[in-house]
Amino acid sequence: MNGKITIAGIGPGKKSLMTQEVIQAIDNATDIIGYSSYINRIKSRKNLNLHSSDNRQEHERAIHAIEIALNGKNVLIISSGDPSVFAMSSVMFETLDNGPEIWKEIEIIILPGVTAMLAASARVGAPLGHDFCAINLSTNLKPWSLIEKRIALSIECDFVIALYNPRSKSRPDDFVKTLKILKEKCEENRYIIFAKSVYSKYEKIKIVKLKDAKVEMADMQTVVIIGSSFSKIIKKKNASIIYTPRSVKH
Amino acid sequence: MNGKITIAGIGPGKKSLMTQEVIQAIDNATDIIGYSSYINRIKSRKNLNLHSSDNRQEHERAIHAIEIALNGKNVLIISSGDPSVFAMSSVMFETLDNGPEIWKEIEIIILPGVTAMLAASARVGAPLGHDFCAINLSTNLKPWSLIEKRIALSIECDFVIALYNPRSKSRPDDFVKTLKILKEKCEENRYIIFAKSVYSKYEKIKIVKLKDAKVEMADMQTVVIIGSSFSKIIKKKNASIIYTPRSVKH
Repeated sequence: MNGKITIAGIGPGKKSLMTQEVIQAIDNATDIIGYSSYINRIKSRKNLNLHSSDNRQEHERAIHAIEIALNGKNVLIISSGDPSVFAMSSVMFETLDNGPEIWKEIEIIILPGVTAMLAASARVGAPLGHDFCAINLSTNLKPWSLIEKRIALSIECDFVIALYNPRSKSRPDDFVKTLKILKEKCEENRYIIFAKSVYSKYEKIKIVKLKDAKVEMADMQTVVIIGSSFSKIIKKKNASIIYTPRSVKH
Repeated sequence: MNGKITIAGIGPGKKSLMTQEVIQAIDNATDIIGYSSYINRIKSRKNLNLHSSDNRQEHERAIHAIEIALNGKNVLIISSGDPSVFAMSSVMFETLDNGPEIWKEIEIIILPGVTAMLAASARVGAPLGHDFCAINLSTNLKPWSLIEKRIALSIECDFVIALYNPRSKSRPDDFVKTLKILKEKCEENRYIIFAKSVYSKYEKIKIVKLKDAKVEMADMQTVVIIGSSFSKIIKKKNASIIYTPRSVKH
């Protein structure tokens, strides 16, 4: 008995943004593991064990899932957004890779989902219409020098830049320094989008020019998207739309 | 009567990867517009007009949708994957932006979906587990010099790199030149993933080392993902898994 683990992306904060196969996987699971605020979104039912964990205990969560799977259960790990983007899939494979040989034969199924930057993009227009990059801003995962280099070179590429995990209480300075680099290297009228808790009832979206951007506009629930030098605004009566044209004329 | 246009991402080639809100939008539409191979995936029914168009006529498709919307219909444009990523959302906003003032007040709703690189990532492991970029390789949209610069700087960033539209009959050389840059600038054992028609019955996935990569492995239905220098393989009995660890140790 080798066991099987499914890792599913439940999308941003609204059930109708889940894919059908994720909904089905939730219905078929005997055990669901995830960060408590995601587990709270799952309806309890007979023969389903829900396992909440702290957001930072990702490695422990992976091991917990492996133990349950080795007992022959149909275990599901849920991540918000897409599980491949800065989330549990990578943690799981790293855990398997560093574990006993037998773990490598556990079947792992990944169910993709709508990641935060795509959800944010849909809410404000089409900022990701042209080449872009996604950077996880957490210095828990890599040295600041590498983040700094990536931001500077991404500006040189004229990428649209999506920043995940921009700011938390334990890392108050990463986004301060990021905003400083952006203000130094981009024109002051460059657009920056702060998209917090997209599609949930706590959704809050701001599109401002870089010169008006403040550190406090971002928190752990925010995806920040910095437009390229080509990103444009369409002014409407009620709200503005931001998009990046697909073409650079040549 | 201002009209309303919905632009939905129908995900990769499998219905169960659509979100619930996209399925509902398809059920509620009076008119659906899209590239013929996407329109062929929609079940016809009473009171639904299906409008197929050529893949390259995106601007005409946007104008067609605007005309239908201004007649008070509930028009839906479908894109494969996510509509924000190198797809119809950006084309629509550019068309509105350059059109008569009244067009700007048409309500546009974007429904996000699972974009090709996330689908490909899910099928092979978690290559997008660390910082990454997405580049549309088509020289129909921008000069080669800009693509070349972005690829070189992305390698310097040590990003995982996802390439959309790598190769078509009308642009046989773009991917030849891209592969040349990659082979020059990356170590020969760097992993490269060719993910063709992911989740459809035509799915074909190859993970090879850069030294073994051939131009013919990519076509217009392929997303190419180049690992970072940290991407790793887990060898299994039946297939290999590729993942990029979330952390760079410091």
